This record gives sequence, structure tokens and C-alpha cells, in this order.
Amino acid sequence: MFNIDKFLHKDTLPGSQKWNGFPIFNFIGGHNDEELVPLKDLEKAAKKVILENGKILGKYNYTGPLGYLPLRKFITKKLKKGAKMDCSEEEILIVSGSLQALDLVNETLLRNGDTVIIEEACYGGVFTRLSRLNINIEGIPVEEDGININKLRDKLTSLKNQSIIPRYIYTIPTIQNPTGTVMSLEKRIDLINLSKEFNIPIFEDDCYADLIWGEERPPSIRSLDHSGRVIYCGTFSKSIAPGFRLGYLVADWKILSRILPYKTDAGTGGLEQLVLAEYCETYFFKHLKTLNKQLEIKSKIMCEALDKFFGNSVEYKKPVGGIYIWVSFPKKVDTKILFDKSLEVGVAINPGVEWSIEEENNKKIRLCFANPTKKEIEDGIKSLAEICQKQFGIPLNIANVN
Amino acid sequence: MFNIDKFLHKDTLPGSQKWNGFPIFNFIGGHNDEELVPLKDLEKAAKKVILENGKILGKYNYTGPLGYLPLRKFITKKLKKGAKMDCSEEEILIVSGSLQALDLVNETLLRNGDTVIIEEACYGGVFTRLSRLNINIEGIPVEEDGININKLRDKLTSLKNQSIIPRYIYTIPTIQNPTGTVMSLEKRIDLINLSKEFNIPIFEDDCYADLIWGEERPPSIRSLDHSGRVIYCGTFSKSIAPGFRLGYLVADWKILSRILPYKTDAGTGGLEQLVLAEYCETYFFKHLKTLNKQLEIKSKIMCEALDKFFGNSVEYKKPVGGIYIWVSFPKKVDTKILFDKSLEVGVAINPGVEWSIEEENNKKIRLCFANPTKKEIEDGIKSLAEICQKQFGIPLNIANVN
Repeated sequence: MFNIDKFLHKDTLPGSQKWNGFPIFNFIGGHNDEELVPLKDLEKAAKKVILENGKILGKYNYTGPLGYLPLRKFITKKLKKGAKMDCSEEEILIVSGSLQALDLVNETLLRNGDTVIIEEACYGGVFTRLSRLNINIEGIPVEEDGININKLRDKLTSLKNQSIIPRYIYTIPTIQNPTGTVMSLEKRIDLINLSKEFNIPIFEDDCYADLIWGEERPPSIRSLDHSGRVIYCGTFSKSIAPGFRLGYLVADWKILSRILPYKTDAGTGGLEQLVLAEYCETYFFKHLKTLNKQLEIKSKIMCEALDKFFGNSVEYKKPVGGIYIWVSFPKKVDTKILFDKSLEVGVAINPGVEWSIEEENNKKIRLCFANPTKKEIEDGIKSLAEICQKQFGIPLNIANVN
Repeated sequence: MFNIDKFLHKDTLPGSQKWNGFPIFNFIGGHNDEELVPLKDLEKAAKKVILENGKILGKYNYTGPLGYLPLRKFITKKLKKGAKMDCSEEEILIVSGSLQALDLVNETLLRNGDTVIIEEACYGGVFTRLSRLNINIEGIPVEEDGININKLRDKLTSLKNQSIIPRYIYTIPTIQNPTGTVMSLEKRIDLINLSKEFNIPIFEDDCYADLIWGEERPPSIRSLDHSGRVIYCGTFSKSIAPGFRLGYLVADWKILSRILPYKTDAGTGGLEQLVLAEYCETYFFKHLKTLNKQLEIKSKIMCEALDKFFGNSVEYKKPVGGIYIWVSFPKKVDTKILFDKSLEVGVAINPGVEWSIEEENNKKIRLCFANPTKKEIEDGIKSLAEICQKQFGIPLNIANVN
């Protein structure tokens, strides 16, 4: 028999394990509430668009390599309304999920040994991607009102003194993942000014920005910049459903035209673009309201469960949007061990070590609340508290248990 | 203003030009006949599956990272019937078009400076991909009954003598792209034996195999191998529509588990998988019959146009399947110039130089016949003949013109 293991190069990634289904209490991943996928309206949209316009699926990229034109047109409207951004459909590239946006930007801008600046903590997939590309990651702490501008300035200065040009500053300014913070307008402007001063681009990931309910959504960084240095991405995974692999990259054509040659997949899913374009035109903003109302309720259930079972032994900020809470434990809790132990009883969490390179964040975890039911949240957080108590003596008492 | 061109690394790909629509006479690309996209049945399938099962779109990869289980189950049936292959749904990875299959296999197996063996001529996208990865390409000529086995043996021996291990032999055995040839059963067995002797994997690309009408479809190479060395890929782009970005990789789990970690796109389009699974279960084989009947008619229209306008000044083999004809011109015709000149009047062709590294193939072109209408085929081939005559004096006379 052929032995692939002996045949492969030494640096090939380790093999996958067989998939055993989702954990019972699934507090990880960007899954949404399945009950909130707008099936009836999606079906209506699908019917109309397949019968009236479906034959265009017979061609690759019917309305050009940037993606389905009616969807791009809707996105310009959506960005105007939500992100306060003016852009033309020629500045939008439809991608197969915002992860493809990350990959395309990285392929265009980064080479082995390059340096990038990110917020810290930050979306876990960013670390795995940048590590694979052998990129030097410089993390800047995130405060209540967004990235620490002074530390960013210090870092940029120090890099400049070493003749290192960071290839971009990556930021999730609105509902930062995982901290849930929203960057203030002032800091957005400061960030643009700094990036001008050091002449580097900003990569603005606005994937969760549609899911804001607790405060007013600030203008996107790209809408505030007039120097053409902001590359922006967004997604429909969070606002409609992650099963739709649809996101978008927005940049001035001078930048987009350099990114586009790296999209060699012969286009993003045509049926999904057709259906979503049709759906969004009529239903998007109405659906977003419903969705955010429900997500706010779910977030409260999660907060109440944390308060009930952990008392004041953990700290977190009440979400103003999004689908996750960034929870901080006392120092003695090693969340990597907590992750291992809780997974044994079917509770899945993101330990800080996967979302950060700063030791400081090892005592934190990310908990996602959109997908599990009320009962799953309550039972799962209770289980987590029990395991944490057994392992680390924290919390000291568990409400309604001890 | 920010100047991206100055900021980029020197080896960044050149920028894209703005898209100006499809050429009038479009004889390139894997587009299908738009009139043959089965809209009504797709709509019925979409309705049923969205209403009954659509909520699973709320999760990423609902039935696991290999893709939607009912679709994988259908593919096992389809492969049994068409490719004569036994495989389990655990040996199938749904991918976002077969180009992603190429990328995943390349990422897993290839590193800078590696060598691979391909058929020559071969699908153009293979050359661009391998060149970007800095791979040494060794081409083996294709005969009427498939790859030249003796030349393959010589090449493998010569590489072995240089201590070079080719990372795979890439073949499109059924309706080879662009030659349209079908590899004989005997050669399939010879190819497996050779790859065993030299202990290398085979990468079997069966993307066009469903579109065979002129002769019996031979068993796939993977169905004839018992050593677990064949990585197989297929697609629904050709049998249903290229707008569906759905293909599949088939390999023993030992191989597939090493490929899977490179699929970091959070899953292939969920809606497209749902709809296609539902559609295929009822309609796939019936649709394939209709499609192939129409494609055969289209291929005859193209052959008649070639005969009419080029007479015996060009040579080609009548297609027994697929969507393209590989046409050979007299030596004095430089098809790269023909390509440039014909594009000026809206006739798009694939010049041999894009599909081959052998100078021998410079005098050939690939013509796709599935997408253009009867009239477009006739008018376009007439235009092509006129340009070719003007430029190279070939053909000497054009029927009904001179």
C-alpha cells in the first residue's frame, strides 16, 4: 500500500482527526442561531431569482470577476447606511467568506518574514494564517475604546528605527473579536493619521459590525480616510448565515486590481450570490433588526448564567453587539487546562492562548452565545463552573449547587 | 494618496484590467449552455430543501468538515455508476470547485522546486498554478488512446537516475483537456503499474468524464488501483452549471486527512450543497442524458463550421464528449498572433501556448462549443477563418466567401 506519510515533505501539516460531531455545549465558532435563518423569505427569493435569472449560472462569473453585480450594488447601499461609507460597485470584490478576504490580502501584501500589526487579543484564525506564512506578529493592546494609540505609535516608531515596514495594521474596530469593544471615533481618526504618518495600509475587518445593538455604530475607518489606504472586509455569515460563504473586500481600484489576480477559484458561489442579492434587496435590514434583538436576549442569558454560576470570580464586559463574551479568570486559572477538561464533558470554549500571543490573555476565554439554546447556555456554563471549581477552586461556591 | 504600487513586494502579480464583458464569440472557458441549466427542477429542489432543512445553514459545516453528508452520499452513488468506483462518504471532501481541489493537493504535496508529471497539452490553469509555486513541469505526450506510456517510463527512469522524485502524475484520462482523448483501459492499468514501480501518487482529474457520449466510459483509474495511491477529483460545474462552485476530492482517508488541514475556508457554500444534493438525488442522471445529447449536437455544429470555413487546412478529432475541440493548424500559423487578431473582432480562442510548454503545440488552438449559440458558432468560426486567411493565407479559400 502507498504510504503518504513517508512520501510527504516534513513541513506538511499534521493530519486531521475524524470528525465526531459538535460538542453538546458549543460555545465556540461563529455559528448563528439556527432558528433565526430566515427560511421563508430566503425560499421566496430563491424561487424568484432561479426562475427569472438562474440561467446565468451557466457561465463562470457572469457579471465579471468582481462578483454578481446586483449583490455588489446592494452592498454599496448597505455600506452607505451601516458603515457610512461611499464606494462604487467597482471597488467591491465578492469573496467566498471573509476568510478568503484575509487570504487574498495576505497573498498580495505579505512575504516570508514580513511584519504586521494586529490588535491583541485578536481572532484566532489570524494567528494560524500569519504563522503559516511565517509572519512576525506585533500585537497592540485593546482598551475599552479600542486600540491603544500610544502603544501603537511607540511600536511603529520602534519598528521604523529597525527599518521594518509593517505591511498593514489589522483591526476589527467595531465589536472587536474577541474583546467585544468598539473603537471610538477619535481613535479611528488617530489611527488613520498614524498610518499616514508611517505610510502603511490599514486592514479593517468589519465582520461583526452589523451586529451592534448596545450603542451607535461609529463610521467605518475606511469612510473616514481620504488617502485610499484602507482595505475593508465584511461578511454575510454573521448577518444571514455562515452556511452562505459570502463576504466582500472593499478597496480603491488601484489596490483591488492588485488583489484580484490572487482570486483564482473561478468565482464565488453563483447560486448563493443570486439568492442573497434578491433576498437582501427586500429583507436585509428588517432581518437584521430581528436578529439583533434575539442576539441581545441570548447575550443576557449568557451573562446571567455567568453571574449565577461564577459570581464575581470572573470579569467580563456586557456585550453591546456580536456573538461572544471575553471572560477573564483569576490568574491561577490556566484556561488551556480548563479547555481540555471541559471538552471532556462536552463543553467547548476558546482558551485565550488560541486568540493571543500575550501571556496576559492566557487567563481569558471566549464564549459564543448565538448558537446554543437558553437551556444549553445555562447547563453548559454550570458545567464549566463545576469543572473550573474542581480544577482550580474557582468559583469558591456555585450558586444552587454547593 | 497612498501608492500601493510602490508599497508592494516586487514579485506581486501584475494588476488586473477592468472587465469589459465577454467577447461576442466566446470559444474559451468552461461555460455551459445557459439554456440547459435545469431551472425548474433546481427551483423545486431549492424550495424543498430550504424549507425543510435550511436552518442548518446557521452553523458552519453542519455535517462536518468534509461537506454536506447527503451530497457526499449522492457522490458515492454517482461514482459507483459513472466512474465504477467504490468509496465511502468518509473518503470524499466537497470543495469549492475542482480548482480548489488542485490547490489543496498542491499545497499538501508540493514545495518550491519540486517536480510533477503532467500530460502535454494540458489544462491551462495547471500551468499557471504550478508556475506560481515554482514547480518543475515534465510533460508527457498524449496519444489517441491516452498518455504515451513508453515516454512516461523513460521520463520516470531518467528522473530517478537524477534522484528526483516526482510528487505526482497528473492526468485527465477521460475527455482529456484539451485533446479530448480517452485513455484506454490497458493504459490505465499500465499507468497504475508504473506509478507503483516508482512509488508515486497519481492525481486523476475526472472533471469532464460525465460528459461522454461517443464511446463507453472506461473505469476511472482510482477504481482500478488497489494500492491507495490515486487522488481523484470531479466537479458539478460541467454537469450542472459552473455557477455552482462545487467539486469533490476523493482519496483514502490516510491521504484525505493530510489534505483536509489545508482547507481553511470554513467550508464550501452551504446553500449550493443543500440544493444540489436535493436536486441530484432525483434529477442528475436524467439531466445528464439531456445535456450530453445537446452537447453532441453543438459539437457537430462546431465541426461543420470548421469543415465549411477551414476545409482541410486544419485537423481535429471529432469530440466523443466534453465541450472543446483541439484544432491543429499548419506550422506557419502562429496561434498566439491568431489569438490577438481574432480577439480584436470579438472572437476568443485558447492559443496552444497557454495550454502547453511544448513548441509543437503552438500551432494548435482550443475551441469551446457548449456556451455559444448555433449562430454564434457559425459566425465566429467564419470570422476566425477570415482573420486566419488574412494573416497567414490559411485557408486558401473560404467556402461561401471567396
